[in-house]
This record gives sequence, C-alpha cells and structure tokens, in this order.
Amino acid sequence: MIEQIARIPMFQGLPQKQLRDLAGIVVPRNFKRAETIFSEGDEAAGFFVVASGRVKIFKLSGEGKEQILHIFGPGEPFGEVPVFAGTRYPAYAETLEETRALFFPRTSFIALIQREPSLALNMLAVLSLRLRQFTHLIENLSLKEVPGRLAAYLLYLSENNSQTDDLELDVAKGQLASLLGTIPETLSRILARLISQELIQVNGPKIKILDRQGLEDLAEGGKL
Amino acid sequence: MIEQIARIPMFQGLPQKQLRDLAGIVVPRNFKRAETIFSEGDEAAGFFVVASGRVKIFKLSGEGKEQILHIFGPGEPFGEVPVFAGTRYPAYAETLEETRALFFPRTSFIALIQREPSLALNMLAVLSLRLRQFTHLIENLSLKEVPGRLAAYLLYLSENNSQTDDLELDVAKGQLASLLGTIPETLSRILARLISQELIQVNGPKIKILDRQGLEDLAEGGKL
Repeated sequence: MIEQIARIPMFQGLPQKQLRDLAGIVVPRNFKRAETIFSEGDEAAGFFVVASGRVKIFKLSGEGKEQILHIFGPGEPFGEVPVFAGTRYPAYAETLEETRALFFPRTSFIALIQREPSLALNMLAVLSLRLRQFTHLIENLSLKEVPGRLAAYLLYLSENNSQTDDLELDVAKGQLASLLGTIPETLSRILARLISQELIQVNGPKIKILDRQGLEDLAEGGKL
Repeated sequence: MIEQIARIPMFQGLPQKQLRDLAGIVVPRNFKRAETIFSEGDEAAGFFVVASGRVKIFKLSGEGKEQILHIFGPGEPFGEVPVFAGTRYPAYAETLEETRALFFPRTSFIALIQREPSLALNMLAVLSLRLRQFTHLIENLSLKEVPGRLAAYLLYLSENNSQTDDLELDVAKGQLASLLGTIPETLSRILARLISQELIQVNGPKIKILDRQGLEDLAEGGKL
C-alpha cells in the first residue's frame, strides 16, 4: 500500500513516516462499471485517488443532461478540492468502467494534519513544485501561438477604434489570458517581450502600438 | 496589506480570518536593481511573493556561468518549495529591476499552520484547483500537437525494429510524456484516444500498431 501511495503525484517525495501515516488512514474501495461514487451536494466525506479504471465527474443541467467536467484515470485524485476547502461535493462522480480507488476520509486526514503539520507543508511543497513545472510547460506550449493571438487581438482593438495606436484593454488581465488560452503569468511575460522588442508600450491598462507592421507579422505567424 | 495578500494566486479565496493571520506575519521588503535576495545553500528562512518588479532565479555553473531557471514577476511566489519542504534554497535569487516583495518568514508561517491547520487545508485546496485548471489547459494546448508527435515516435520505434507492428516502449511513461512536451495524465488520454480509434492496441509496455496509415496521417498533422 505504501508503494502505491508513494506513486501518487500529490504525495510524491513524502518521507516514509508520512507515507506510513497515510497508509494508516486509507480505505481501498472497489466500484462496478457505471456505479455512482458520490452525488452533487453530498457532504465531502473524503477524497479519492484512482488506482485503476476511470471515473467521470459531471453536473446535471436543468433538463437532466450530463455535462462532463473531467475524466480521471490512474494516479489522479478527485474530490480533494471540496475536502480541503471544507465544502460539499460540487458535482457527481460515476465510474466509466470497473474501478479501484483509494479513499482518504476527511476526518482522519484532518486529524493527521493536526498531529503532523509537516505533512501539509510537504504536500504544499509537492503541489507548488508541480504547479511551477506546469507553468513552465504551459509557457513552452503557449509561446508558439499566444503571442500571435495577442498581436491579433491588439490589432482588432485598434481596428475597432478607427485604427488608433492608443488602446485601452477592455478586459481584466486574467480574462484576457484565459481568452488567449494561457495563464496571467505567461501573458505578462509575452507582454514584456513585446515591450522589449519595441512593438508596444504599456502603461497600466493603456497600450500604445509602436510598430504596427511588427504586430501584423506576429499575428500572421511570425516569431517573437 | 490584506487586499494585496488576497490577490496572490496561492492565497486566493482564503477566508478573511486567514488573510488577516497572514498579514500579521508578512514583512514587506524592498530591493534595488541587481540586488541578491538569497544565495544557493542559504537556509530557507522564508518565501517571497513579488509585489512589483522582477526577480531571476539562477544557478552558477562550475565556470561561474549563470543558468537562469525562472524569472518571476508580480503575484508570483519564489523560494516557497524549499520553505515548505524544509530544505535550503537550491539556487540564487537576484532582482532584475527595483523590486518590492512580501516576505513570509518560515518559522512564523509554520507556527501559523500549527495553530490553524485549516490554513494549510485551504492552501492545498487553492493549489489543487489551480493544478487542475493547469492540467486542463495543458491538455487543450497539447491536443493540437502531442498526438502527432506520439504517432511519429511510434513509427520511429517501428522503423528502428525492421518495421515491426509489435513495439515495446523503451522509456517510462513519465519520461515519454516529458519527451513529447506534456504530462503523463494527458499522454494517457491521448493513448486512450488512439486505442478507441483502433490505431493501436496497448498491453502494459507493449504497443501493437493496428493502422499504420492512420498513424502516418496523424504524424503528418492530421487530427485525432
């Protein structure tokens, strides 16, 4: 069981003692195909990690239509956000095939963290590191396309305002990032590149186009 | 100060009480341009969040050459992984311009978590949710290119083995994912798509090519 827990990304690199503690509270659970694991609004009694099989997380629309939010497979946790946040499950979980899952009950997990705060710190370290690696990956993936999309968006703003060079961003940076398919951190770095290459000037929400031809090249697939 | 802390992604959505607790331990710090914030091997006395300015994190090679690992800007934390993990700073941090940062000392932060484990749980909830959003984004970004790269890799393996249809993966799945520029979870889902479209069959590390033409189309930019 300890080896199985050690392979879960969320717990990777935890010291043996904490892996043993986790093994002490885990409850292995088996589900048949198309079995409901929890329903929206249920008290979040604990979180699960898929050992084998697949689980879909979905909401039901007013007309009872399924809207699938996620499909989780081996190694992936589900239900952990409401458990950590102390809220109810925000959606339904149902197996897509025969599934084995590890169940970590909320009360034992919280008792464990109270007894051993370093477990929480270690998990924070693991998640922070993973988040950083993901940020890097998103940046690498985004740098191919997002600068072009941003350039196209700026030119579109300008066009909508009689070709002015003085633009004012009409959406918050977080929204703009998500519109362009990236995260605010990456958007900031792309803006910084556009500034350092003297394509634009930025002053709060105001953006001045310095090199319209450069932006057009970028929008048409050129590289930064 | 509380508003500033509430805007930091790592702390977003924390209850007022915990934001106040954090504001109680934070130390604002100002750095000049090109000032060293910490050095590799220093005891990780606390973590920082950039308020304004930019900070580079770097290692020094044997010959004293800088290898920049990250550049962090407003809202981004740095030094938190060694602080959470209880190790030393693994690299140097130096400002690229005049920088204001919020410093969270390790001892007060740990004392806070011991007094209030729900802070750690809430931070785990925030990081888990962010990780999930990032996973989705990586998946959306990867689905454009990774299937083609995976198909090309499988055809290459086959070519290196006298065009056999029966392949054996020679790298661990985590390594393969990183080779293809994605994460293991996304690789699993792409493999599942290739299987459901009867392009390949998978059995542990063994992969059988069922539709060579389909893989070739995919490798040449076709869609899944």
